[in-house]
Parts: sequence; C-alpha cells; structure tokens
Amino acid sequence: MDITSLSISQMERSYRTSLINSLNGYKCLQLIGTTGKDGHSNLGLFSSVVHLGSSPALLGVVFRPKSQSHDTLSNIERTGTYTMNNVTQDFFEQAHQTSARYESGFSEFVECGLTELFIPGFDAPFVAESTIRIALNLREILPISINNTTLVIGEVVHISMNSQFIAKDGLIDHEKAGTLTVSGLDSYYTARHLARLSYAKPGIPTERI
Amino acid sequence: MDITSLSISQMERSYRTSLINSLNGYKCLQLIGTTGKDGHSNLGLFSSVVHLGSSPALLGVVFRPKSQSHDTLSNIERTGTYTMNNVTQDFFEQAHQTSARYESGFSEFVECGLTELFIPGFDAPFVAESTIRIALNLREILPISINNTTLVIGEVVHISMNSQFIAKDGLIDHEKAGTLTVSGLDSYYTARHLARLSYAKPGIPTERI
Repeated sequence: MDITSLSISQMERSYRTSLINSLNGYKCLQLIGTTGKDGHSNLGLFSSVVHLGSSPALLGVVFRPKSQSHDTLSNIERTGTYTMNNVTQDFFEQAHQTSARYESGFSEFVECGLTELFIPGFDAPFVAESTIRIALNLREILPISINNTTLVIGEVVHISMNSQFIAKDGLIDHEKAGTLTVSGLDSYYTARHLARLSYAKPGIPTERI
Repeated sequence: MDITSLSISQMERSYRTSLINSLNGYKCLQLIGTTGKDGHSNLGLFSSVVHLGSSPALLGVVFRPKSQSHDTLSNIERTGTYTMNNVTQDFFEQAHQTSARYESGFSEFVECGLTELFIPGFDAPFVAESTIRIALNLREILPISINNTTLVIGEVVHISMNSQFIAKDGLIDHEKAGTLTVSGLDSYYTARHLARLSYAKPGIPTERI
C-alpha cells in the first residue's frame, strides 16, 4: 500500500504516532540515569540514542518537547552528567514502567523496582540490573527548532560490562549481553546474530567473518 | 570490567571504533537513496537514523565528516529529496557492499546488484528489494560542530509497504517485514518479537498487550 503525505497528516493522532514511531525499524533502547535537584535519582527510558563519533566517543540523544523526559533533560543541564544503561529481558517491564509520568521528587528506581549503582567520582546513578553501563559528561545541547526537540551530546567517560561481551577487535556482542531493542513506543524485541561481514571494497564480494 | 576515559583515549584506533560504534546497542539500518549531479542513482548504508517527531513526521540521520556518505549528503543538499529503505536477510550482503567507496559517477545499485524503483512525482530512487520504503523531503541541515558531523532532518512524504505489516493501531511489525538491525559497523542481527507493553501509568503494573 502507498501512504501519502496527505493521508499521514489526516491520520488519527495515536495511529500516526504508532506508525511514525515504528517507521525507521529497530531502535536503540537505553535507560538514562540522572540526579535530581533534591538529590534523588531519576531514570527515564529512551529509544532515540544515536552514535555520533568514536574519537572522542560521543553519543547523542533526542529529547521530545514537554515530555516526561523533561526531568532527565533539566537534570543533565544542571549536573552535566548522566548514565546510559541497556535493557534486558530480565527487567524490561520495570524499564517500561519508568516511562510513566511520576511527579518530580519520586525516584523511578524505587517506584519501578530497579537498583541504583554508583561508581566513585561520578554523580549520576547507574542501573545495577543492566549488563552494559555507560557514564557520560555533557558536551553540548543542540536545539532542533523545527519541532522544538533537543539533541543532547555527551562524551563517554566510563564503561562497565563483563569483558566476555567484547570480541578481540572491540565489537560488543549484544546477544551475549542480552540487550533488547524496541520498535515504536512499546514493542520489545530480542535479537539474534545473523552474520558479520568483511570491510566492503569496490569489486570485491563481501565475506562472512 | 571497567573501561575508563583514559583507556578509551589510548585504545588502538580500530578497536575503539568497533567498541564505541557497538556501545549503544542495536541500531536502525537504512539504505538511503539519492540522485547524483549527473542523474545517476546513489545508495548508501546508514545506522544513524533517529525518530524526531510524528507530527510533522520527521526523521534525522547523522552524517560523518568526509566519509563515503559525502555523495549522499551533497545529493540531498542539492536535490532536497531522498529515500530510506529497510534491509532484510534476502539482500543484506548487497546492502553492506554499498558501503564500499565507489567513485562518484558509479551507481551502487548497479555495482551491488540492487534494483532501482521510482514513484511518479518523486525524484530519488527507492530500493525495490526493501519491504518498507520511505520518501523524504529535506527540511533542515544542522551542523554538529563538536565533531564536524551533520544532522540531516527530513519530512516523510510517502511510505510504501505491504498493508499486512501494519497493525490496527498503526504499529509496524518489523518481524513480518523482515527488517534487520545492526550493531557496530558490520554485525547484522535478526529480531524476534518479545512483547508489547501497555501505556505506563504510576502505580499500575504494565501488562502485555
């Protein structure tokens, strides 16, 4: 079927939200941990994390306007630090529950049954249940004026995971780590490794490596 | 294991590239189709597409500096139109091959064995082998000065897919569509649906729907 620009604009709101949120396929799923003004821990679920560069190691995350992410964004702006934590099958229901609109002052860790973890010298909370935990320092906040969203850019300053997840050449095995992926706002998927392919060169067929 | 900021900066370059590119988990995989200056079709593989909003329907994609994506970016700047096309198990090796550095003037469609598809009134080429095809009009180009990358923002103006992939509420079933996901630069995964969860509200346990 063909869906035109006109029919997208005329769709019922929640239908369009589901369709467009699931349009680009499987998305990166991360719990972002921050510290609130009064010192309590805050946790939010995001599917808009994007790799920006490896040297320096930069990750971006898009924040929607006036969403539940508001606390997370203002905490990052104030403290300059945050964590990203992967989500596995063991606790994805608790992770999803963090997207409920808790009032400021409530900690999603407590409300949703997840465990805070801290490392010395870094203020933002990690998720103990996650198998890959990343600490970031805020580097830049880029307003996206076209729809009032915000791209937050952070530098990776610490990574914690089981060393067995990392191949000899540095690639992380997310199947081993149990990482989930998401499509749309609420549809969770496990992933299974299909193949690694060799570096592509003109005229030379790629090989499975 | 713990990986510190210092050890990230001291890593051998290709190891760091693999590690940091695979750090955030499963990424959205899209072939981007454009039209070159001389009228030939161009195709590039991207894993940095991010949902920006549903109304208007906006998708962003991050372009690396001076990479093979250069042709794609300059084509988008010049023509204002491009397509995104999902990748399935049936042709992921051809899709990967498009990341080889073909010289300008060569069409990755021809070189990699993929089939161009056009719709009336839209200039950029789609990938016939893809099961979900999206047409976009350029809306904004946002330079990310911190590492010289670029966020290209486009509005979805046309979508083609089998109507059976779309649930009653608008959610796309990417398992049915055969969509693949990628981790790092070269590690491809299939995905299997785990669960959909109900809209999260404070104090109410989420349910599988």
